[in-house]
Amino acid sequence: MTTQPMRTPTADGVARAAAKIAELLPQTPLLEAEVNGAKVWCKAESLQPIGAFKIRGAWHRLSDLSAEERARGVVGVSSGNHAQGVAWAAQRLGIDATIVMPVDAPQVKLEATRAMGANVVLYDRPGGEDRDAVAQRLIDQSGATLVHAYGDPWVIEGQGSAGIEIAAQMAARGLEGPSRIVVCCGGGGLAAGLALACPEAEIVPVEPEGWDDVAHSLASGEIQRVAPDAPPTACDALQTPATWPINFAILKERCTFGLSVTPAEVRAAQRFAFAKLHLVLEPGGAAALAAALAGKLALDGRTAIMLTGGNTDPESFARVLSGHD
Amino acid sequence: MTTQPMRTPTADGVARAAAKIAELLPQTPLLEAEVNGAKVWCKAESLQPIGAFKIRGAWHRLSDLSAEERARGVVGVSSGNHAQGVAWAAQRLGIDATIVMPVDAPQVKLEATRAMGANVVLYDRPGGEDRDAVAQRLIDQSGATLVHAYGDPWVIEGQGSAGIEIAAQMAARGLEGPSRIVVCCGGGGLAAGLALACPEAEIVPVEPEGWDDVAHSLASGEIQRVAPDAPPTACDALQTPATWPINFAILKERCTFGLSVTPAEVRAAQRFAFAKLHLVLEPGGAAALAAALAGKLALDGRTAIMLTGGNTDPESFARVLSGHD
Repeated sequence: MTTQPMRTPTADGVARAAAKIAELLPQTPLLEAEVNGAKVWCKAESLQPIGAFKIRGAWHRLSDLSAEERARGVVGVSSGNHAQGVAWAAQRLGIDATIVMPVDAPQVKLEATRAMGANVVLYDRPGGEDRDAVAQRLIDQSGATLVHAYGDPWVIEGQGSAGIEIAAQMAARGLEGPSRIVVCCGGGGLAAGLALACPEAEIVPVEPEGWDDVAHSLASGEIQRVAPDAPPTACDALQTPATWPINFAILKERCTFGLSVTPAEVRAAQRFAFAKLHLVLEPGGAAALAAALAGKLALDGRTAIMLTGGNTDPESFARVLSGHD
Repeated sequence: MTTQPMRTPTADGVARAAAKIAELLPQTPLLEAEVNGAKVWCKAESLQPIGAFKIRGAWHRLSDLSAEERARGVVGVSSGNHAQGVAWAAQRLGIDATIVMPVDAPQVKLEATRAMGANVVLYDRPGGEDRDAVAQRLIDQSGATLVHAYGDPWVIEGQGSAGIEIAAQMAARGLEGPSRIVVCCGGGGLAAGLALACPEAEIVPVEPEGWDDVAHSLASGEIQRVAPDAPPTACDALQTPATWPINFAILKERCTFGLSVTPAEVRAAQRFAFAKLHLVLEPGGAAALAAALAGKLALDGRTAIMLTGGNTDPESFARVLSGHD
C-alpha cells in the first residue's frame, strides 16, 4: 500500500510509546498463576478499557499524527479489537475514524466500535473479499491515514509497551525481566513489539490450529499464507491470512519456533482463566495460556503469558463454561 | 467469645496493615466504568490471589500472631472467601488452620480452601447449627486463635487497606480520594475498615434482599438480626445473620443508610462486569455494583465501587450469562 509508512520500528520507539501510554492508562495487572506446577506471570491485557491490548498501538499511532493528518481522519482494518483501539483513540483525540470490519465479526465488537463513534464499513470475509483493498478505496477517496492492525511501525511499538510494563512489574517483585513471553499471535504486531521491548526474552507466538502461518513462516524462513481451506476458528482476533515483512523481519530474528493450539485447548484455557484468575478471556485472548496449559513449552519461574483480550459474547462464553470436552 | 480480642480497630492499624500488604500483594486494579452515564471507579478485589479481598484481613491478623500463638494454630469461620484468606495466610506462615464452613458452601470454595492445606470442619447452616459454637468447641480443645470473618480488629484493619489503595490510585489520576464507597456487606468488616481508611468518604453498605440486617441496624440505631425466614440468596458471601458491636460502632457513625439488592439486580451486575469489565464476579461480589446499576444511589465522578469476589461455579455463572430476566 502506497500510504504505508516504511520506517523500521525500534526499541526507542517502544520506550516512547510506553511513556505516552503510562500517562493515559494504568498498568494492567501481572497476575501470578500456577500452570502444571510452575509459576507463570499472566499479563491481563483483557482489562484494558477496550478489553484488549490493541489500545496501545492505536494510541501511539494516532497521537503521533500531525494536525493535518488528524483532519483527514484514519482508516482501520480489524475483526474487532484493533477496531475498538482505533475508535477509542480517535474519539479521545477528536479524529474521524472509519473501520473496515468483517461481516462475521463478533456482535459485541461491532457494537462497541460503533458506540465509540467510529464509522464501520463491512466486508465479506467469508466470501474472500480483500479487506486491504476495501481500506485502500476509502483512503483513496478521503486521504485518510491507514492504521494497519499489525503491519505498522507505530502499532508494533505501541503494542510493545506491554513488555516494558511486564519487566517493571517483575522487577517490583525482585525478579529479572521475563525469560520468555508466550503471546497470542495474529499478524504478529504484539509479538514483534514485545521482541523490541524485551531484548533478553525468548518470544513464542501461539496461533490457532490451521491459522499458524507465522509458525510455518518461522520454520521455512519465508512468509507463508494460511491455506485457503483453513478450518473455522473461534479465535477471530487471530484470524489473519499472513504476517507482513515489517513484522517478520523482527520475528525471524527472535523466535525459534511458533506453536498452535486446538479449539479444545483454547476452551480449556478460557475455563482456567475463569476459575483461577476470575478473568473473562475471548478465545483468541486465551491462545498463549492454552499452549502453556497443554504442556507445549517448558515453563520456568520467569515465563510471561499474554492474555490479550476479553471481548466475547455471553452466549459463547456460557457454552465454553458448560462444555465437557 | 472469651478469646475475642477487644481492642478497637484504628486508622493507624489500617495504615500498618496497608504497608504489610503492599510488601506482599500488588495493588488490585481500580477500573473505570460508566454506570448510567456516570464515571465510577471499580476496585477489582476479585483479582486477589484467592479471588476475594479477604486475603487482606487474614494476612494482617495471622502475621501479627506471636510465635506461641502461631504454634497453637488458628480457627476461622466462613462460607468460603475468608476461609481461603485464612488458609492462604496460614500456608504462607506455616500455621495450622481449621476452617468451619457451612455444608452448603459453594464447591469451588470448599475445594480451594482444602487445596491450600486447611482442615475443613463442616456445620449444618441450613439446619440452623450455630457456627460460632462449633468454632468455640475447636478453640477450647486446641487453644487455637479465632480469626473471625468480620468481628475482629485486625481483620477490619486489614480489609481497610483496600481503601488506602483506592485513595492512592485515584490520586495517581489527579483525583481527590473517593467521595463515596459502595461496598458489598455481610458482617461489615470491609465496610468498617474502609470507613477507617477513608475518613472523608461516605460508606454505603449493600446487602442482598432479606439479608439487609446492617441496613435495618443503621435505620434503628441498634444491631438487628436477619429474620429466621429470610429468603434464599445466591450471595453466599453476604449471608451473615448479624453484624458485631465492633463493626457497628464504626458503621453507625459513618453510614447514613444501607441498601439492598434483588437477585435479578445482582445477576444484571454480574453480566455488566462480564461485558464491560471482563471480570468474573460471584453474586456476593457484585452486590455493590448492582445497587449502582439499579440507580439506588447518586453517582458522582469520585464514587468507588467494591467488586469483592469472583469465586463462583462455572455452571452457575453460565446460567447467569444465559439468563433473560
